[in-house]
Amino acid sequence: MNALDKALTELVVANRVLSNENVVDAYGHVTIRHPDDPARFLMSRSLPPEMVERDDIMEFAVADASPIDDDRQPAVERFIHSEIFAARPDVQAVVHAHAEDVLPFGITGVPLKPVIHSGSFIGSHVPVWDIADNFGDTNMLVTNVAQGRDLAESLGDRNVALMRGHGFAAAAPSLIEVVRLSVYLPRNARVQMAAMQMGAFKQLSQGEIAARDTTYKPFQIWRAWQYWAHRAGCSHLLADGSGTEVKKRR
Amino acid sequence: MNALDKALTELVVANRVLSNENVVDAYGHVTIRHPDDPARFLMSRSLPPEMVERDDIMEFAVADASPIDDDRQPAVERFIHSEIFAARPDVQAVVHAHAEDVLPFGITGVPLKPVIHSGSFIGSHVPVWDIADNFGDTNMLVTNVAQGRDLAESLGDRNVALMRGHGFAAAAPSLIEVVRLSVYLPRNARVQMAAMQMGAFKQLSQGEIAARDTTYKPFQIWRAWQYWAHRAGCSHLLADGSGTEVKKRR
Amino acid sequence: MNALDKALTELVVANRVLSNENVVDAYGHVTIRHPDDPARFLMSRSLPPEMVERDDIMEFAVADASPIDDDRQPAVERFIHSEIFAARPDVQAVVHAHAEDVLPFGITGVPLKPVIHSGSFIGSHVPVWDIADNFGDTNMLVTNVAQGRDLAESLGDRNVALMRGHGFAAAAPSLIEVVRLSVYLPRNARVQMAAMQMGAFKQLSQGEIAARDTTYKPFQIWRAWQYWAHRAGCSHLLADGSGTEVKKRR
Amino acid sequence: MNALDKALTELVVANRVLSNENVVDAYGHVTIRHPDDPARFLMSRSLPPEMVERDDIMEFAVADASPIDDDRQPAVERFIHSEIFAARPDVQAVVHAHAEDVLPFGITGVPLKPVIHSGSFIGSHVPVWDIADNFGDTNMLVTNVAQGRDLAESLGDRNVALMRGHGFAAAAPSLIEVVRLSVYLPRNARVQMAAMQMGAFKQLSQGEIAARDTTYKPFQIWRAWQYWAHRAGCSHLLADGSGTEVKKRR
Repeated sequence: MNALDKALTELVVANRVLSNENVVDAYGHVTIRHPDDPARFLMSRSLPPEMVERDDIMEFAVADASPIDDDRQPAVERFIHSEIFAARPDVQAVVHAHAEDVLPFGITGVPLKPVIHSGSFIGSHVPVWDIADNFGDTNMLVTNVAQGRDLAESLGDRNVALMRGHGFAAAAPSLIEVVRLSVYLPRNARVQMAAMQMGAFKQLSQGEIAARDTTYKPFQIWRAWQYWAHRAGCSHLLADGSGTEVKKRR
Repeated sequence: MNALDKALTELVVANRVLSNENVVDAYGHVTIRHPDDPARFLMSRSLPPEMVERDDIMEFAVADASPIDDDRQPAVERFIHSEIFAARPDVQAVVHAHAEDVLPFGITGVPLKPVIHSGSFIGSHVPVWDIADNFGDTNMLVTNVAQGRDLAESLGDRNVALMRGHGFAAAAPSLIEVVRLSVYLPRNARVQMAAMQMGAFKQLSQGEIAARDTTYKPFQIWRAWQYWAHRAGCSHLLADGSGTEVKKRR
Repeated sequence: MNALDKALTELVVANRVLSNENVVDAYGHVTIRHPDDPARFLMSRSLPPEMVERDDIMEFAVADASPIDDDRQPAVERFIHSEIFAARPDVQAVVHAHAEDVLPFGITGVPLKPVIHSGSFIGSHVPVWDIADNFGDTNMLVTNVAQGRDLAESLGDRNVALMRGHGFAAAAPSLIEVVRLSVYLPRNARVQMAAMQMGAFKQLSQGEIAARDTTYKPFQIWRAWQYWAHRAGCSHLLADGSGTEVKKRR
Repeated sequence: MNALDKALTELVVANRVLSNENVVDAYGHVTIRHPDDPARFLMSRSLPPEMVERDDIMEFAVADASPIDDDRQPAVERFIHSEIFAARPDVQAVVHAHAEDVLPFGITGVPLKPVIHSGSFIGSHVPVWDIADNFGDTNMLVTNVAQGRDLAESLGDRNVALMRGHGFAAAAPSLIEVVRLSVYLPRNARVQMAAMQMGAFKQLSQGEIAARDTTYKPFQIWRAWQYWAHRAGCSHLLADGSGTEVKKRR
């Protein structure tokens, strides 16, 4: 299995996992940079993530999010992905979703903070991007390069940015890491919201966030990857190239 | 497949979807105007929406909600639908449901506002209709033309009205749009409730609501329709006439 | 199918429904008065309601909750049921459950009120019974006639009483009605709790509660019964005697 | 079936049950002391609990949590278990989990109290252990003997300790009891959080807690064990040695 085959398989798994874990629903998307060409990225045609099959995945140019030799209907908001890939050479995978429990933080002035160990990867500061700031009244969707770039600038070198009244965009150096971040982000949000009802709360320290970044081991992330794929009914897809790796990294 | 066949199939799908998405339970109903006769509408006999099959659908007169050549037990509250169809020639589909998360807004003085992009279709003002205002102590159900008309007047030219201590009534120019509105209405309510716990919140602007109304594209709604039918286990019903359309609009 | 056969079948369905609707879990029970002998009642042996089969149902004496010719392990808290049946000749069915969302009302001084139309059957006043008031420190369970009688006195002529730190006891003139009450009680509690976060709320009026009591029609309750049985995977049990009745009452 | 066989089977059931009841997800673990050697304990290799099969279970030394003749990847946090077994000869089973609804109590100063009868086993005081107190900035995980010992000291002779920003550790004299405690702990937390929104609340008295400890009967716990195994789809595993016992204790 070559790198592209592996990337396509894993992208299908990521789509199914994010849907099964209620991060995405009919909308939302996950992408990866093309393993052989960093100027391209891979993304499903406009389709609910739960229904994505390998043949639904299209290639796009990072430069302008245009489809490459493919006339199928692309997702409207592919510019979120292209501009993050353009601004961040370190990023290999991006998620955009409307996960319900992060939305209250996007419409209030309350900062989202990492309060649980599995939420450490959101980082110490989660910016909130409001499309209205620079684009006035829109349909809230990121539909062109300029809007995507503005969002990517708000994200900066962080892992996740909230989008006011809309959702979030997350970026990571690997597909599995961006899925992990996206799954635990809403949980962290729920715990913080509950804690706020009860009084003052303690967030992770800068040192704790840093320690987790540097000491988290691959097999620990693979453990979650296997679990989510199992729950989403697509662990058989890991039985080929990816699956072999799961066993090796055990 | 003629227009009526298509309408019947889609109405079955809508019943199943609304049940699977927890908008309706044992009660609640979705209707469409008869495609060949705007003075009639189509509605299941009194049955839990999850259990509705094509043969369960009856025809009713918009004028008085009376069944047309059918002696099966109709839903008690069919007057909600008939009077909205009567007052609103632009409306082709209506949902009435008791979705739990909108109920707190119906019994408090707190206005429900669109706070997330998928909630924009509820509009900038969601009226609350209290059956007690004009009818005193009732069993809370809309059981005659006068009550249905009063509710339709409260709704006016808007997309959704809350019903105090009972639920909501939603109207739209197509079946898929009214389903979409009904699915995202409770989510919008939950996000607003959570945000209210945290402090002040920002709602969608009038310009954003308008921009979404004018720019939302059919393929984007079909994407959700496919997803909900898939989840509800009835996407096979879309494989005939409707399904063809799904592919074409891709 | 004679009255006892029908009662046994429906009691199995009620057990499965209450479990599937999250009213009971490993614990909790539903009982009916023996159709041929009002001095007896029918109740499963100590078993999770989800697992109850017809042969698991035992007969007990209303007088002292003793098993009648049966040496299997009875439920510890059968005295809740026996004493309500003893005090209330009008009651044909009783539920005791620990449904999570009613518990906050049992441990605070906040009265639970009917705020949604489907919650009207809880009545205008829901007493809270605290076992500690008359029995001091116990293991919280109703384990003898005296405790059951004390609870039944707290219930009085109402439909439901909360039990502090424990759950609730509900009573109704039929099995289907007590199931309906038990399913909508937690929903009413959730809506009231959410409304309380938002400010003042409007409850159902005495007249509305009364109007619902007098005008609710059997086919409307059967509609829910069919739905819950369908969801719980036991609607086939309604296909015999009970099922015939479902069709007739349609 | 000898004691070890029985222990291995029950440990598989416990893994599946805790996952199905949402106490653990990809992470978290349950262990039992070796039935034939109190200086050893049994624990799955690093694997999501839902996926644990009998062959995945490894043996570890209580003394230092080192695997015994097994080179498979162990769970990083096995030191939680080893040190509790070391400090508490009365403990036969331990659970560590990140159950979401207990997390707010770990990051606020609000004490978790038993407020429902099924939560009595958490005891009158639930300590909160903060790894930062004695170890400064870490990756939040319990990765060595010293950290495990510190946690065990915080636990003392109690049944459960919260871990700040991380989860909880629970201990009991039997596997079924520690599972029961772990399942009802989040429920108790949710009820307390809801009650706190409503005002003052009444917790279980010391006498009630004690009465439940002394009067709770084995068949009542087996009832829940059967139920959870049934729901988790592994009740067939109880059909052998354990299952026989279920029937006998009925």
